[in-house]
Amino acid sequence: MPTNIYNFGAGPAMLPVEVMKQAQAELVDFKGTGISVMETSHRAEKFSEVIHDARVNLCKLMGIGDDYEVLFLQGGASHQFAMLPMNLLADGETADYIDTGVWSQKAIKEIAMFGTANIVASSGDKKYSYIPDMTQCKFSQAASYVHYTSNNTIYGTQFHSIPKVGVPLISDMSSDIMCRPIDINAHGLIYAGSQKNIGPSGLALVIIKKDLIERSVRKVPTILSYATHANNGSLFNTPNTFAIYIVGLVAKWLQKLGGLEAMEQINQKKANLLYSAIDNSDGFYSGNAQKEARSIMNVTYRLPNEGLESKFVDEAESIGLKALKGHRISGGIRASIYNAMPVSGVEALVSFMDEFAKKNG
Amino acid sequence: MPTNIYNFGAGPAMLPVEVMKQAQAELVDFKGTGISVMETSHRAEKFSEVIHDARVNLCKLMGIGDDYEVLFLQGGASHQFAMLPMNLLADGETADYIDTGVWSQKAIKEIAMFGTANIVASSGDKKYSYIPDMTQCKFSQAASYVHYTSNNTIYGTQFHSIPKVGVPLISDMSSDIMCRPIDINAHGLIYAGSQKNIGPSGLALVIIKKDLIERSVRKVPTILSYATHANNGSLFNTPNTFAIYIVGLVAKWLQKLGGLEAMEQINQKKANLLYSAIDNSDGFYSGNAQKEARSIMNVTYRLPNEGLESKFVDEAESIGLKALKGHRISGGIRASIYNAMPVSGVEALVSFMDEFAKKNG
Repeated sequence: MPTNIYNFGAGPAMLPVEVMKQAQAELVDFKGTGISVMETSHRAEKFSEVIHDARVNLCKLMGIGDDYEVLFLQGGASHQFAMLPMNLLADGETADYIDTGVWSQKAIKEIAMFGTANIVASSGDKKYSYIPDMTQCKFSQAASYVHYTSNNTIYGTQFHSIPKVGVPLISDMSSDIMCRPIDINAHGLIYAGSQKNIGPSGLALVIIKKDLIERSVRKVPTILSYATHANNGSLFNTPNTFAIYIVGLVAKWLQKLGGLEAMEQINQKKANLLYSAIDNSDGFYSGNAQKEARSIMNVTYRLPNEGLESKFVDEAESIGLKALKGHRISGGIRASIYNAMPVSGVEALVSFMDEFAKKNG
Repeated sequence: MPTNIYNFGAGPAMLPVEVMKQAQAELVDFKGTGISVMETSHRAEKFSEVIHDARVNLCKLMGIGDDYEVLFLQGGASHQFAMLPMNLLADGETADYIDTGVWSQKAIKEIAMFGTANIVASSGDKKYSYIPDMTQCKFSQAASYVHYTSNNTIYGTQFHSIPKVGVPLISDMSSDIMCRPIDINAHGLIYAGSQKNIGPSGLALVIIKKDLIERSVRKVPTILSYATHANNGSLFNTPNTFAIYIVGLVAKWLQKLGGLEAMEQINQKKANLLYSAIDNSDGFYSGNAQKEARSIMNVTYRLPNEGLESKFVDEAESIGLKALKGHRISGGIRASIYNAMPVSGVEALVSFMDEFAKKNG
């Protein structure tokens, strides 16, 4: 991979260079077996080691205790939007959802078939540019769970504290999982599509408290039950073996880096560099998110006009700073700086931003 | 990949050597982009080409017309077991299922929540060693569809003609899709987990007639509706992009080989080599499947006793003939000789079988 290419895409996103190099080196001969990990049976000893190591290393990294199961499912987060209420919400029951944008709404939409979503807070009044104040939320007394989207890729906002609730707390952490240490024990269930911070697409990581698995509220198809996958170590059916292998490599890469504390420091440094460039641009760049809600994963901002934004994206692309175009909903620029983005990538972007502002300001 | 290693595993199974080499060569730099296909957005132009080419080439290879949709879904065939009745079987309706073993039964089990499965034929009386005579089947007058499993990996049996029915015919072709030309137009829906004949795990290929998509019998979660995926070109949510890329490479490899007619000839040759070795072994090897039902994908056979079977598997493994142990249900030996297995692999196995029989017979 040429070192002067930096991929700021929101997902499927860049993976650590070391991980990609190892994946390439052993793609056709996995650990001396003469075959690829992709060609290995999910029930073979070599793959048992892969999935075991991935699980153990994720638990170590994130501080996941024995009272949780780590599941490697298919279908991404979109699949979880449906699996959640299907498994955890009995007919007529209510769940509280915090609406911080498109992805929250997609999760909310899938409740209707199974129960009622109570929107306890929304930042929709200001184009999702902030995170609602959780201390002002009126959570339902009888909610089966509370759901929040920890990071919002489109608007560049992120929860910086965990909502305090008296019922199982569920989080879609697709776009910021493992970007920093979090309190697993505050959550009943955490899920994340893999394609942003932990691997290639085609996988959902689900961390679920064991007592929630036992709470099966209705009969569901075998493949859609959390219990099925928990009881079979994510091997009820053939999982996405290659993605699990990559997630395992990413977990090892994070450990080598010093774990999630070290990762958070690096992520914070990258975010600070970018937000400083925005704040010190004399208004040429303006951030979308309110300062206290700024995401350290997706930095979204605007230029004085759409013509300049388009020029910015094209010129950046031409020097290897790729996929900076914002989501069509929010427009402008989006720099996704997930775990795998090195500081040098952000430095290159900041340097380009400074020059671009000088030339076009 | 050392050329003396042959992987006879039933799945995830071996992929064509040329495909794996290309995947390795471009793993970290896809077509000069400087990033991996795994790191490319599913909405990026480069990936649009990948999924478009894969779809077009599959249609050409298999003779899929404009009245069908080709979908790339997640969850494998196990997911389809549930999606099928959920989408196609209204409450109280009946579907006819042909029971040719474990995988048929798994499909049948998932009907119960939605309607009634009528088992029109079963080869369970003889340990699934044959394919029931379709001309003797009493199909229901009111069946919403008829379902069959075209190839049975555990028992080594395969349908060699397509059941003639008056309602939509649905086939689980996970383990023999694209092993030979088939009449797509005889089917309403064909599905296949990818990990045997077409790619790595984590994908289900679904070929569905457009009029069946429109027949949505009940409200289902968005992600579980065929219409959702058909209306969004399999990009409603992030698909397993890397698997789609590999499926595309496999399709190109098949085209270069001469298409499915050429592939069938090679598969037939491989199967003939193995079945001849069994039939000419003076009873040392005995095939599980009745001759007219023999699979050209999974060749299953027994040795005089389990001790010899175990020795056979170990010795074969030691010379690079890997994963020949049969499924625990049927025991014995299973040589999976999917499309990617070269004739040289089967020749090496036959040569080993001859020697082993001489030494141990």
